[in-house]
Order: sequence, then structure tokens, then C-alpha cells
Amino acid sequence: MSTVDVQEVAIDTPQERLRLAKDAARVTARLTSGEKTDALHAIADALLEHSDEIIAANADDLARGERDGIGAGLLDRLRLDARRVAGLADAVREIAALPDPVGQVVRGHRMPNGVDLQQVRVPFGVVGAIYEARPNVTVDIAAIALRSGNAVVLRGGSAALSSNTVLVGVMRDALEARGISPDAIQSVDAFGRDGAKALMHGRGLVDVLVPRGSAGLIETVVTESTVPVIETGAGNVHVVLDSSAPDDWARDIVVNAKAQRPSVCNAAETVLVLRDAAERLVAPVAAALQGQGVTVHGDEAVARLASDVVPATEDDWATEYLSLDIAMRVVDTLDDAIDHIRRYSTGHTEAIVTTDVRNADRFLAEVDSAVVLVNASTRFTDGGEFGFGAEVGISTQKLHARGPMGLPELTSTKWLGRGAGQVRV
Amino acid sequence: MSTVDVQEVAIDTPQERLRLAKDAARVTARLTSGEKTDALHAIADALLEHSDEIIAANADDLARGERDGIGAGLLDRLRLDARRVAGLADAVREIAALPDPVGQVVRGHRMPNGVDLQQVRVPFGVVGAIYEARPNVTVDIAAIALRSGNAVVLRGGSAALSSNTVLVGVMRDALEARGISPDAIQSVDAFGRDGAKALMHGRGLVDVLVPRGSAGLIETVVTESTVPVIETGAGNVHVVLDSSAPDDWARDIVVNAKAQRPSVCNAAETVLVLRDAAERLVAPVAAALQGQGVTVHGDEAVARLASDVVPATEDDWATEYLSLDIAMRVVDTLDDAIDHIRRYSTGHTEAIVTTDVRNADRFLAEVDSAVVLVNASTRFTDGGEFGFGAEVGISTQKLHARGPMGLPELTSTKWLGRGAGQVRV
Repeated sequence: MSTVDVQEVAIDTPQERLRLAKDAARVTARLTSGEKTDALHAIADALLEHSDEIIAANADDLARGERDGIGAGLLDRLRLDARRVAGLADAVREIAALPDPVGQVVRGHRMPNGVDLQQVRVPFGVVGAIYEARPNVTVDIAAIALRSGNAVVLRGGSAALSSNTVLVGVMRDALEARGISPDAIQSVDAFGRDGAKALMHGRGLVDVLVPRGSAGLIETVVTESTVPVIETGAGNVHVVLDSSAPDDWARDIVVNAKAQRPSVCNAAETVLVLRDAAERLVAPVAAALQGQGVTVHGDEAVARLASDVVPATEDDWATEYLSLDIAMRVVDTLDDAIDHIRRYSTGHTEAIVTTDVRNADRFLAEVDSAVVLVNASTRFTDGGEFGFGAEVGISTQKLHARGPMGLPELTSTKWLGRGAGQVRV
Repeated sequence: MSTVDVQEVAIDTPQERLRLAKDAARVTARLTSGEKTDALHAIADALLEHSDEIIAANADDLARGERDGIGAGLLDRLRLDARRVAGLADAVREIAALPDPVGQVVRGHRMPNGVDLQQVRVPFGVVGAIYEARPNVTVDIAAIALRSGNAVVLRGGSAALSSNTVLVGVMRDALEARGISPDAIQSVDAFGRDGAKALMHGRGLVDVLVPRGSAGLIETVVTESTVPVIETGAGNVHVVLDSSAPDDWARDIVVNAKAQRPSVCNAAETVLVLRDAAERLVAPVAAALQGQGVTVHGDEAVARLASDVVPATEDDWATEYLSLDIAMRVVDTLDDAIDHIRRYSTGHTEAIVTTDVRNADRFLAEVDSAVVLVNASTRFTDGGEFGFGAEVGISTQKLHARGPMGLPELTSTKWLGRGAGQVRV
């Protein structure tokens, strides 16, 4: 009763919502795996049940987006229809089926004095998320947070405000109907920029903050936050074609890495060809790319060997195109290739095509990226492909998580010790 | 020689030193375990060899410290004599004997398409450390960083400037004599506040920053840094005496937790006594503490039951005394004890003394601290006691590392994939 009184009196601020999430995190941390599974299915059911309402709210966002001229690509990512809402519900059910990381014993031993020590997985507590106008992220992150026992505070792009408001409302009601504090899913969208600021400065209230979106958004969050951040996403991804690269592997891997889905972070953006192999590989690889509609931005050596090459500038080496464009450069040695990567890579994924075991080993050892591949497409850097089930994001930082993240990466640990009166001597 | 030339030409700025450390990190990352062991023994030998020089530099710091009136405690921690220099060398040899975490395979599997995936431990790259005027930390952190394959950039307290300059010089020369880039150990002490700022804002150059020292120093580093930080140290540590706590365990654990070494972060600062047990436990526990020279700051209930109690104020609950003082409070229920901890704890270590299995389990589950103990002294929260060998620090954050840290906590991971032309379908 007293809680209700306090809520009626409290002024609604982003900080207050963080505080409510922190209280709710005490509840979600202690839900059993079965209770979380049931809650997630209840959320999936509720999304389907309220599909019309969600689509109507989304129509408001779309109309506003069109008026504001936000562009066809953004409008498409913003759009929800009955099929896409069903897809959201399916995604929640997939997350419900993932193993619960909470309570897992990571390691343990008995101390010489007899105290039993265990390091166990526990939820972070409150997970914050700052992202762009993609309503599917709202549902995805909430479900992932809940599966791993966390409360979540969401700050989505303002262009999706109406959609997110309804989605969050539907999810909160579904929790409440199952007797779980709805404050486990909070949004600070209504506070605009102040909502994001509260998340970034929520020391003591926000345990970890995950930005998802453009390089600019991520940079802002990393630079401004005083709470711990997991940096995700940006991928200026390289494929190196070694002197020993077989023709077919070189062509198939480059084309797949670039063209299979060019808009995602694990798509290749630059191909580096060793000079020894340039004569043999540049023309057919460029032609195969062009056959898939890819524009090749090449240096002078590439332009001499292949046709229809757009001259590459310094900017091309640093660009994450996320489109049907690729940069191509001829380098003298493997060292030059590794130096190029060191200079321009965002540390996401790099691959080499080679049959020389020494070059393969050097590449694996010396390239400092989250995922380093030999003779495989960079498109494999993905939580699903790695067998983690959920798409929590791909960390490009070195602290806590690196590369594709699964549910365990959304947990912390604590040490439990059980003794019988032991003191330190 | 060329290194010297470059240094003479390049403008010496803290950023330049970070860049040199980043280059050196490429070298240290690929040292074998044996090479690192040898380098650490060379450092230990060099410390002993240059003992007189180190002590002379330290004498300058001590004289300056006395002139500036920095206080007896700080002067003592700053002081180096022949025995303490020998202790520094011994500590380096202990670190040299620890297992090398680099190259350890954390997990791995073969993807359904045949690509072999391995997650392996790799050094962070460049570890930054900001700490106070304790020359032993200079040597400790450098040795720990090197053992785990990292380069290190140090920023120690200005009161230890002369000592640190000589210590860093001795360690760098020892590396160079073994053919390892001396830039793997850098100091930015000479740049004063600008050195610390460069570390805190060294995005792309500093992979992780570890502050060690007072709560104020840690707060500054966490708030100001744009690079990832591992927060260590502050410990407002609680011991709860449950209604079922046996007299001897209650007394022994509280006295050990407070008085065995009051100046460290795992020392107890507050005792919470369940009301049911107050009559039985408060007087003997307070008397046992007082017998060790501890001042008991108690609430009214404690003052009624024990003698010589100093009245506690709100401030006492929030204070990390780090001295022969302890706060003591009587609470009605275990819930009240947990609520008190939730409000005042820094999330380091809490213990309960109880024979009631339900209360033990509730305490372990509901107290959100790095280490939660049943019937054991809080003084066990320590890398050495946990069997990790080195004292890297005790993390009080939830990201990456929580609780006592060993060498593996100073590494990251990367994923290696080996295929035979696989592409994504």
C-alpha cells in the first residue's frame, strides 16, 4: 500500500522511472526460469492480441515520418504490419526458448580452510538501451533483458514514439497480468533528450547501457555516459586475398561477404589483394562483384586490372558503406595488409583467404578484431550463426564481451561463500 | 638507437606516450609465456641492483612530503627502504610464477557448416592505471600487465614522482636489455593532471583503465573517463548477526572482519544485529571489539545494551571508516537488514552469521554485492585468499569482472574461425 502512495505522490521524471526499474529488478532477478518463460509467452500473446492497436499507432509514426521526409529506408525499418507484428511475437517466443543463464555456476572450489566458494551468474539488474527508430528493437531488447532476469529501460528513436508507447504498454500489461511488476519494462521516450541523458548519467541506477544504431549514436553514448557501456556494431570489415588464395574461395567469399546482405555490420567493406595474386584475382573478383550490382572503388593498381572501377580515395578505406559498394586495394605484403587493417578497421571482423598455414596463423594472431576468420565469409559473425540463439548485438569493445553476444553476456556474476565460522589468520 | 631518435624528434606529449604503448602492445601480445617470465625476473633483478638509486629518489619524495605535511600514514605508504625494495622484487617474481592466461581456449565448437570456432584469451592491449602515492603499485601493476601480455601506462600520485620515475626507468631498461620494447611500460606522471586526462580520454589508445585509491579518485576516473573503466575498491562492508547466530561465530567473525586489518577495503564497517538476538549478542560482541581497541558507534538500542558506545548518526551508516571504528545497529527483521545493506552498501562484501538455512539462502540470493558470505569473515574477499595469486584489485562493478580479480580479468578474448571456403546461405 505504501508503495502505491509513494507512486501517486512522486513526480514522473526519467530518474524516477530508473528508480522504479531498479526496484523491479529485485523481482525479476528472483523469477524462476519457468516464470520468465511464461511471462515471455504472455507478452507474445499480448502482442498478437493488440496487433491492430500497434499497427494503428505505427501508422501515426509513418505519417509523421513521411511528413518529416525521413527517407524510404528509415520508413521501411519503422513500418509494422500484421506479418511483422507476428514476427515480433515469434522472436519473443524464440527468446523464451533460450536457456536461462541465471544461476549457472561458472566456477567454484573449496578454500583450504573449508569455505565453499561459488561464482554464479546473476542478472545485471537494470539494462538500459538507446537505439533508433526500429520498433522491433523495443520488443527484442525487452524480451532479452527479461529472459536474463534484468529490468530494462528503453529509449528508442523519436520517430517511433507512438509505436513504442503502445508496444511498451502492451508488454507492461502482460507482465502485470502475470503478477510481475510492470516497472521491469520502462520507457523514457516521453522525456526526449532528457530520457537519454538520464540513462547515460544513471550511476547507481543503470548497471549497463547498450547503444544500438549508427556509429554517431554509439559514439555519443560512449563519450557521454558515466555508466558502463557495451559498445556494439560498427563494422569496417576487411577481406584479405593472400598470394595463395584459390580463385573460387576468393571470389565466393568476397561476393558473399559483400553482397549477401550489404546493409549489416558483418558485410565486407574493403578487399585487400596481395600484389603477387593481383593479376590473377582482381579482374574475376571485381567482375563477380559487379555481376551482383556492386560498385568497386579501387586504387590505381585495381583500376589497371579491372574495368568500371571508381577511383578510391583515402575516405573509401575508412568508410563503412553498408551498401552495394566495396573498396579494393592492392598491397605489397601481408604486413601491409595487416597495417592497413590496423589503421582503418573498427575491430569487428576480418577474414583472409589463403592456403598458406603460416600466413593463416599470422593473420589470426596479429589482427586485433573481435572475430578473425580464415577461409570463411565475414557474414558468419552473428549470434545465430555462432549458436547463441538471440541477437543481443555484436560487441566491438574488449571489456566484458567481444564479438557476438548471447544471453550470458547480459549477466554479471557474484561470489557466494559458505563457511562454518572461519576467520582470516 | 632508432627508438631514441624517434623520441627525440617526436614531441613528447602524453598522447604520444599512449601511442608508443599501443605499438609496444603488439610486441607484448605475442611474447611467449617463457619470454614474459624471463622479462619479469630481469625486472626483479634490476630492482634489487638499483635499490640504492630507488631509495635515494624515494628520500626526495619523503622530504618533499614532510615539507608539504602529507601526514604520517601517507608518508609510511610512500616510504621505500632496502627491505621494501626487496619486497617489490619478490612480488614481481610471484607474478612471474602465475599461469599465463593468454592463449587459453575459453570455449569452442564446430559450426554445422564445418567452420571451427574458438574463443581464446588475448591481452587487452594497453592497460592504464591511475593511483595514489604508493610506489609499490607502480611495480605491481606493471608486472601484472606484462604477465598478461599488456602494455601499461601509469599515472601515480605526484607525491611519489621521483620514486616512480626511477622505478619506471629501471623496469624499462630491464625490458630493453632483453630485447623487448621499453615502451611497454610508460609513465605519464611528468605531465601531471594532463597525463591523467590523456588516459581518461584515450579512446582508441587505452583499452581499459583501472583506478586504484580513494573513493574520490575512483569516482573522478569513472565519471570523467570515455575509455572503459574497471571500478575497484570502495568497501562499506556489513556483517549481519541473525537471531540464530552462535555466540562464538558472531564474536569471532565480527572481531576478525573489523580488527584483523582495519585499513583495507574488505574490513567490516557496520554490524547489524537482529532484535531477537540483541540482548544476547550486542554486549559481548561490543566488548570483544572494544578489547581490540575498536570504537563502537551504536544506535540507541546498542547504547542501552553495551557500555562506552558513541552515538551513531546517519553518517555512520554510510562511512567506510578504514580505521578501528565500527557502526552497530539493531534491526527488527532480516528484511530490514537487507534493506539497510541495499541503501548503504558499496556492493563489495557482506556476511551473515546464522544457522538458519532459509535465512542463509535468502541473504545469498537477495544481497547484491560482489561477494556474499555465510558464516565467514569478510576479510576473505581477496585475490590471494580466493587462490588467484596476484592482487589485481577487487572490482565493485558488474561489467567484465566482479569481486577479486586475477590475471584472466586483465585479458579480453577474440574469436578465431577456420574454414575451407564456407559462405553464408
